[in-house]
Amino acid sequence: MFNLFRSTVNIAHGYLKTVVKPGGVAVDATVGNGSDTLFLAGLVGLNGRVYGFDIQPEAIRRTTEAVIENGYSELVKLFEQGHENMGDFINEPVDAVVFNLGYLPGGDHNIVTAPETTLTGVIAGLNLLKPGGVMCIVMYTGHSGGPEEQERLESYLRHLDKKLYYVCKIDFLNRNKAPFLLVVEKASEVSMGGLK
Amino acid sequence: MFNLFRSTVNIAHGYLKTVVKPGGVAVDATVGNGSDTLFLAGLVGLNGRVYGFDIQPEAIRRTTEAVIENGYSELVKLFEQGHENMGDFINEPVDAVVFNLGYLPGGDHNIVTAPETTLTGVIAGLNLLKPGGVMCIVMYTGHSGGPEEQERLESYLRHLDKKLYYVCKIDFLNRNKAPFLLVVEKASEVSMGGLK
Repeated sequence: MFNLFRSTVNIAHGYLKTVVKPGGVAVDATVGNGSDTLFLAGLVGLNGRVYGFDIQPEAIRRTTEAVIENGYSELVKLFEQGHENMGDFINEPVDAVVFNLGYLPGGDHNIVTAPETTLTGVIAGLNLLKPGGVMCIVMYTGHSGGPEEQERLESYLRHLDKKLYYVCKIDFLNRNKAPFLLVVEKASEVSMGGLK
Repeated sequence: MFNLFRSTVNIAHGYLKTVVKPGGVAVDATVGNGSDTLFLAGLVGLNGRVYGFDIQPEAIRRTTEAVIENGYSELVKLFEQGHENMGDFINEPVDAVVFNLGYLPGGDHNIVTAPETTLTGVIAGLNLLKPGGVMCIVMYTGHSGGPEEQERLESYLRHLDKKLYYVCKIDFLNRNKAPFLLVVEKASEVSMGGLK
């Protein structure tokens, strides 16, 4: 049998598969090495759309190449922009938003996501979600500023209205310093938008 | 869209659906009002088997009736026994074991699961799991002895070998005193048995 719970990314992907369907719209808020962008493109297919954001030119360059190689150029739109600005580039409701917080694996470890822009990006993403849409945040806190980023983010999420958002933290109990997963699901019966 | 994360039970059921297949074998370690027994019976179907345990005669009586009404008599085996003894009654590997820790809803609130027998039951269940099999523990800690039960159980699970078991805790961040979910997945490549 297949082990869904063998890693945070695996749990997130298993869950996203049940939510993001062909023709859907998804956002990779932290493109990095592009693996989530490609994964989401595979889920939405040629009638869907994926928006990707990263402030690192190298991440956008590498991922652009991978997107072309995989035949996804028509449906993937990449922006060399921080995710805090995603609302300026996306004018449609989305099924899913994915964040990978920390640094770009194999990239410059001095360039990390930061508490302030992360929170702004998360709020922008929540406002874009369709009712029933989801946000998955994979969080590594080993980098400098990591614990502060976690604290800012969790204290925001703890105060989200429980009737509008289902907010779960998924943690490995028997691993040290493992990344963990935050899942925010927008209630399927509510209308969109309006977070400050 | 459907909200998987609207409750702990919902998360557990959504996950169990992906693991427990027709012809499979499952254990309801805390039968209670029988809802998990019936849910599991629906998943394994007429070629599968469900074992249920509860120390309360009323729980076994009610659930036996419901099992008959639903046409599951052939595949469900109920025991008026504590789950700590499940190893004495099950002689085959199982795909899933489900625990609901706390008291029987609508039943006698003085009869609750207890730290010692819970831990014994969990260990017995882990030993019965097939490679790739799962345990889902929905935990309410509001009852007397609840926090101690949680502490005993989590401190045991924290020390499970991370190569053999994937152990996750799924918690609601924006709810007070909500039940939470513990998931233990046995690695799919390991052989069975042997926990003390």
